[in-house]
Amino acid sequence: MIWPSHGSNPRYLYEALGLTLPEKYIDYSANINPLGTPASIKEKWMDFLAEIYVYPDPNATCLKEKIAKKEQIPLESILIGNGGAELISLVARIFAGKKVVIIEPAFSEYEKNCRINQCEIIYHQLHGPGFELNLADLQSSLTGADALFICNPNNPTGIQFPSSTILSIIEECDKQNCSVILDEAFYDFLAGYESFFPYIKKYSNLIIIRSMTKMFAIPGIRLGYLVAAPAVIQNLSELQPHWSTNTIALLAGELCLEDEAFIKKTQDYIFQERRRLFDFFQNHQFVVTASDVNFYLLQDPYLKDQFDLFQFLLHNGVVPRHTFNFPGLEGRWLRFAIKSSEENNRLLEVLAEWRMYHPLSS
Amino acid sequence: MIWPSHGSNPRYLYEALGLTLPEKYIDYSANINPLGTPASIKEKWMDFLAEIYVYPDPNATCLKEKIAKKEQIPLESILIGNGGAELISLVARIFAGKKVVIIEPAFSEYEKNCRINQCEIIYHQLHGPGFELNLADLQSSLTGADALFICNPNNPTGIQFPSSTILSIIEECDKQNCSVILDEAFYDFLAGYESFFPYIKKYSNLIIIRSMTKMFAIPGIRLGYLVAAPAVIQNLSELQPHWSTNTIALLAGELCLEDEAFIKKTQDYIFQERRRLFDFFQNHQFVVTASDVNFYLLQDPYLKDQFDLFQFLLHNGVVPRHTFNFPGLEGRWLRFAIKSSEENNRLLEVLAEWRMYHPLSS
Repeated sequence: MIWPSHGSNPRYLYEALGLTLPEKYIDYSANINPLGTPASIKEKWMDFLAEIYVYPDPNATCLKEKIAKKEQIPLESILIGNGGAELISLVARIFAGKKVVIIEPAFSEYEKNCRINQCEIIYHQLHGPGFELNLADLQSSLTGADALFICNPNNPTGIQFPSSTILSIIEECDKQNCSVILDEAFYDFLAGYESFFPYIKKYSNLIIIRSMTKMFAIPGIRLGYLVAAPAVIQNLSELQPHWSTNTIALLAGELCLEDEAFIKKTQDYIFQERRRLFDFFQNHQFVVTASDVNFYLLQDPYLKDQFDLFQFLLHNGVVPRHTFNFPGLEGRWLRFAIKSSEENNRLLEVLAEWRMYHPLSS
Repeated sequence: MIWPSHGSNPRYLYEALGLTLPEKYIDYSANINPLGTPASIKEKWMDFLAEIYVYPDPNATCLKEKIAKKEQIPLESILIGNGGAELISLVARIFAGKKVVIIEPAFSEYEKNCRINQCEIIYHQLHGPGFELNLADLQSSLTGADALFICNPNNPTGIQFPSSTILSIIEECDKQNCSVILDEAFYDFLAGYESFFPYIKKYSNLIIIRSMTKMFAIPGIRLGYLVAAPAVIQNLSELQPHWSTNTIALLAGELCLEDEAFIKKTQDYIFQERRRLFDFFQNHQFVVTASDVNFYLLQDPYLKDQFDLFQFLLHNGVVPRHTFNFPGLEGRWLRFAIKSSEENNRLLEVLAEWRMYHPLSS
């Protein structure tokens, strides 16, 4: 069984399982903002058409200036990329052949890109349902390591690690000359996330990656940025293909950065909706991770792995992200994005039906 | 003096020269179809908006199927890329540390990417105004080489090398276990270009790169494809970042491939307009390369280098592509794209004025 390497594009999942994609289905496997794309992008869309005729600014100066101003960081500390995935692939190249620690479970692109670059990979496995991270447990893995990948808030669990833990890890890695790649792809789905940007001046070993495709619901046009010491940015931009970020993404990115109200509205919606869903899960005896963001892991605690539930959902047109190819999860959880209330209701309906046929022994 | 690495984005050129970008200027430095983007893309543009919410198909299956059918090549021999520049950067990685020959003058991305990958670079220099290529001269450079980059029709000269010459080079390289990277970014600007696709089955050393941004005037959204033996495609796609080609480019690409009439109309326009321009250049004693496509090199034969002419043009809002950073040209030529008749007329006007002040001694 060869699983598709990611969520989204459900046709590949159904194909791999030998199932027919139902005419109606809802894809919960992509962690995209359920409120959709900001109105400003829709309003400007026709104006963007004239811009496809023009080469993208290879330096992405306008977008960088906006990020620099908003985040109070120097222009030379920013690299714009063709989505988070491109930035991860660039970072992995500077650690080619080196010893790299990945805190698992994690977005599979870290492992894939480290493997391609012949890194020696150490998996530091966190365990459910709490997936707690602490420096003491990590210490032995860090010995002789050149880089550490952390995803915070974590994908796939949705759990935010305590800031003090992250900071202690950055400090310890700095002492050991080990770079920390902090992937903050989902940071903006929770209110009051404490940014680590202020630390890039103090810690030249800190590399922070942010996606703009999740919050602003623009995965189709690809956009992300990376923040680090200017010397790191210089190294990475040499490796990046010319004109890598397209003109539409650059223009859309500028609009998105201005839309604070949209981010706030999203955070409020996700907070409310997550509470509603989690109440249901508790009442129906499903176990979920203590997610702080727009997705979560779920399991029926009475199943050894979740394959039967997974199949039941797929047959009902509910497409979660399975975890058979997440190291350390191996199918024991299913990941769901928080979508519109109507779509979430459909999920609850199907899960209630499942529970009816699979009551827990009381 | 640090020149911007490419044409387009004139603000960087004016900045580098310490000049003010005039309010009105015409950019002849980007070799983009002057007829603009096909009507079908404009008509579908609003439909594309809904697609930015969706992750791109990482396998680009629909677009690959269209290319496979049109070009009569297997699906497994096609890689879709985020513009020609990304494909060149991927190819250079598989020759990291190897000996690579570049037929110069050429698109600067070959050299840049080979350098980044610590290749040993041999420059095989062709000489103007004919820039003739032949296997006999190339032989000594090929000894022990692992890869050869050829751009045909050539950028920056616009000259098409004879098919028999290209084929003899592919054959010779095959014997010597040397890969040939044939960049056909501008092949479709000339009617009756003889495709080398049929040879990918016979020669596993042949890698062909095509851009879709030039003919279809979509440099802003980035799109290209690469054709080679399935094993080569497999290697390259492992190195490619996930979701590298955006959804808009994939959809636009499908529309473009169907628009044969647009290609024909472009070819006819370029042919007619080039003849008109070249007649003027001959009458006004400018030397040009025997271009077959939508751009050409030009020089005033009475100048040692073209810097004075270049400055004169920039002051008049005419922005050519200088050649100071093309190995073997070093400023002795200027490159111009063939644009709309009105824009071309403005170029002729400014060149006529230059000639008036700089008459040739008769």
